[in-house]
Amino acid sequence: MKLFRTLIPLEEAKNIVLTHARTLGIEELDFDAATGRVLAEDIVSDRDSPPFDRAAMDGYAVRAENTLNATPNNPVILRKSETAMVEEGEYLPVQTGMPVPNGSNAVLMLEYAKEDGSKLEVFKPVTPGKNVSFRGEDVKCGDVLLSEGRLLRAADIGLLASIGKSHVRVHRKAAIGIFSTGDELYDPKEHTSGKIADANSYILESLLRDIAKPVREGIIRDDYETLKTAIRSCTEHRDLILVSGGSSVGKRDFIADVVDDLGEMIFHGVAIRPGEPVGFGLIENTPIFCLPGYPVSLIAAFELLVRPFLYAMHGVKESPINEFFAVATKKIPSAVGRTDFVRVRLHSTDNGYFVEPLRVSGSGILTSVTKSDGFVIIEENSEGIEEGELIRVNLW
Amino acid sequence: MKLFRTLIPLEEAKNIVLTHARTLGIEELDFDAATGRVLAEDIVSDRDSPPFDRAAMDGYAVRAENTLNATPNNPVILRKSETAMVEEGEYLPVQTGMPVPNGSNAVLMLEYAKEDGSKLEVFKPVTPGKNVSFRGEDVKCGDVLLSEGRLLRAADIGLLASIGKSHVRVHRKAAIGIFSTGDELYDPKEHTSGKIADANSYILESLLRDIAKPVREGIIRDDYETLKTAIRSCTEHRDLILVSGGSSVGKRDFIADVVDDLGEMIFHGVAIRPGEPVGFGLIENTPIFCLPGYPVSLIAAFELLVRPFLYAMHGVKESPINEFFAVATKKIPSAVGRTDFVRVRLHSTDNGYFVEPLRVSGSGILTSVTKSDGFVIIEENSEGIEEGELIRVNLW
Repeated sequence: MKLFRTLIPLEEAKNIVLTHARTLGIEELDFDAATGRVLAEDIVSDRDSPPFDRAAMDGYAVRAENTLNATPNNPVILRKSETAMVEEGEYLPVQTGMPVPNGSNAVLMLEYAKEDGSKLEVFKPVTPGKNVSFRGEDVKCGDVLLSEGRLLRAADIGLLASIGKSHVRVHRKAAIGIFSTGDELYDPKEHTSGKIADANSYILESLLRDIAKPVREGIIRDDYETLKTAIRSCTEHRDLILVSGGSSVGKRDFIADVVDDLGEMIFHGVAIRPGEPVGFGLIENTPIFCLPGYPVSLIAAFELLVRPFLYAMHGVKESPINEFFAVATKKIPSAVGRTDFVRVRLHSTDNGYFVEPLRVSGSGILTSVTKSDGFVIIEENSEGIEEGELIRVNLW
Repeated sequence: MKLFRTLIPLEEAKNIVLTHARTLGIEELDFDAATGRVLAEDIVSDRDSPPFDRAAMDGYAVRAENTLNATPNNPVILRKSETAMVEEGEYLPVQTGMPVPNGSNAVLMLEYAKEDGSKLEVFKPVTPGKNVSFRGEDVKCGDVLLSEGRLLRAADIGLLASIGKSHVRVHRKAAIGIFSTGDELYDPKEHTSGKIADANSYILESLLRDIAKPVREGIIRDDYETLKTAIRSCTEHRDLILVSGGSSVGKRDFIADVVDDLGEMIFHGVAIRPGEPVGFGLIENTPIFCLPGYPVSLIAAFELLVRPFLYAMHGVKESPINEFFAVATKKIPSAVGRTDFVRVRLHSTDNGYFVEPLRVSGSGILTSVTKSDGFVIIEENSEGIEEGELIRVNLW
């Protein structure tokens, strides 16, 4: 297998990796530990919510028809009920969330009335049902509240709490082994100087921390047997391996050869820029991505291929929206036949966001990522983006 | 102090709370533990990056002027240098990231040449500087790479690694005490049934988990002295207190009175919907938010007031963009004199995103949040949004 000789299109590469993405089983968690996790079951309500007709406002429970002719100058006078029931011509004070008393059908807001002892002056009519949340209005018993595949966020956790769902089944997190390779690398946590500090392991660890269980396995020197031993041992106790190249002679072929030796490289080289040297293989059943050594290329390959794979591997079917549209402030040229990953900065105006490409090339330029707000993907069959064009932007 | 009688505008409320937001000091962390934390120092590069002129591509280091007339039919022939230096008519193979050999000034891509033994056929000319990343091109010694107040993300961690910045100073996280109040509430983690499950503590805990250190302090019954004791004790060891109302008679006045007793309520009631009953006070120097009992009101008050406060309290000056523009598919009416918090769903088309309001009222309807992709804020002086209008959308 030779690198750069067999570039495949991004869509083909994405389809291949997704074919090999399998979820890792299910675990049960306390509902409040499930933020950021992916549901492995449908959540069905076992109750109506609200459980009774309740006041949606602080105010006075009344019969709407009694307030029909109320005006500020000619208020309707109601008397306070002496029971729990509101009868003709009566009212009862209610607080938000309380059951609406039997006999009443609306809640009059505090500001539209004045209570004096056990008499109420009503200044404005209310319509039946006003300021009442009816039983089952939010959720009916049997409703699917959250679907399998949902990436859970704060309001979802609240919804689980509100129906008393104390445990939830979620997809298991992948344990992901992260290697950097290259004789020239040093670990900036362990040494204070060296040739090139390994940034890639830390970038990957940070990118993975919310969705998976990343494990930095360290830096491997450019030696075939060392690499082979490390990778083989790792396949035994990780669900996925990410190896990023260093930047010295021949190391990428080392990795591809090691994977071919222990298993099979499925592709190596994708028509994306940056990120072109990305490869994917399988060792026994453990998937392995060979990622570029340059940090920006690494991030591009991660966003274009690894992230979709990770989402599939974690069973994600519904995740928060993370892309939107904005207008290009300048032409962004691109070659037909490859997908470009362009870092962009956004400028907010009253007429929407405008997109400025930060740098189209320069895969070593990590500041092209840190200075950007997100990225734009220019598809393979596109010659680029014209000034003034409305384009999709992905946010970091 | 009476609730609902003294509604203040959102902008005024926001200004008041921001006046009382103070950062909590600084701690030093390993750089790789700083994802999601807020920088408390400028990060200045102590080196050039790249540290030397290096190859940006796998290929052959050449003198650009030697390739001037190369064509596929009439290749230029170069000979392999026998030293580390590229002289007139010579080349040397280089891998991405390697120093470019002295004497060369460009890297010819693999596909534009064919190596045969120690001879290279060149099929295409390169320009000087082509495929070379020059020393300091990414970062110059002395450049500010990341500024104080930056919320750190993956690429930033990589940038810290790449300059060997092993420790960083970040703003300390706030320890935040979370209470729910109300006789009708039960904790769904502890009991399987009851009147109303407390969702609010869990929503707040989940919303806070990335930026702060939330601590659920539990449910307090509607009893003045119990509430007072719990709040006072909490002010002694938390940096901020969030209390959400339950939904029974008089409880909101309890909290406001307790705060006034122990310290001072600064405002109580803001012209926002939902979220109106939100209040803010100080007990000694500990800020306390009194939040609405209805989950959607709670979330609205959180997004409109607590989040800006939290960001200020954590020193955030630069955070990822989380809002964009989309077109309203229908009219969203709103009353002048209050700010509306409208949950919306987004529909993606090739012409951008379209916004559909999910529900303007119904503060108990938590599914109006879980079914939404984000929210729209309709400002106090607006009568609402017209169909077809371009509006700002905040993503969850």
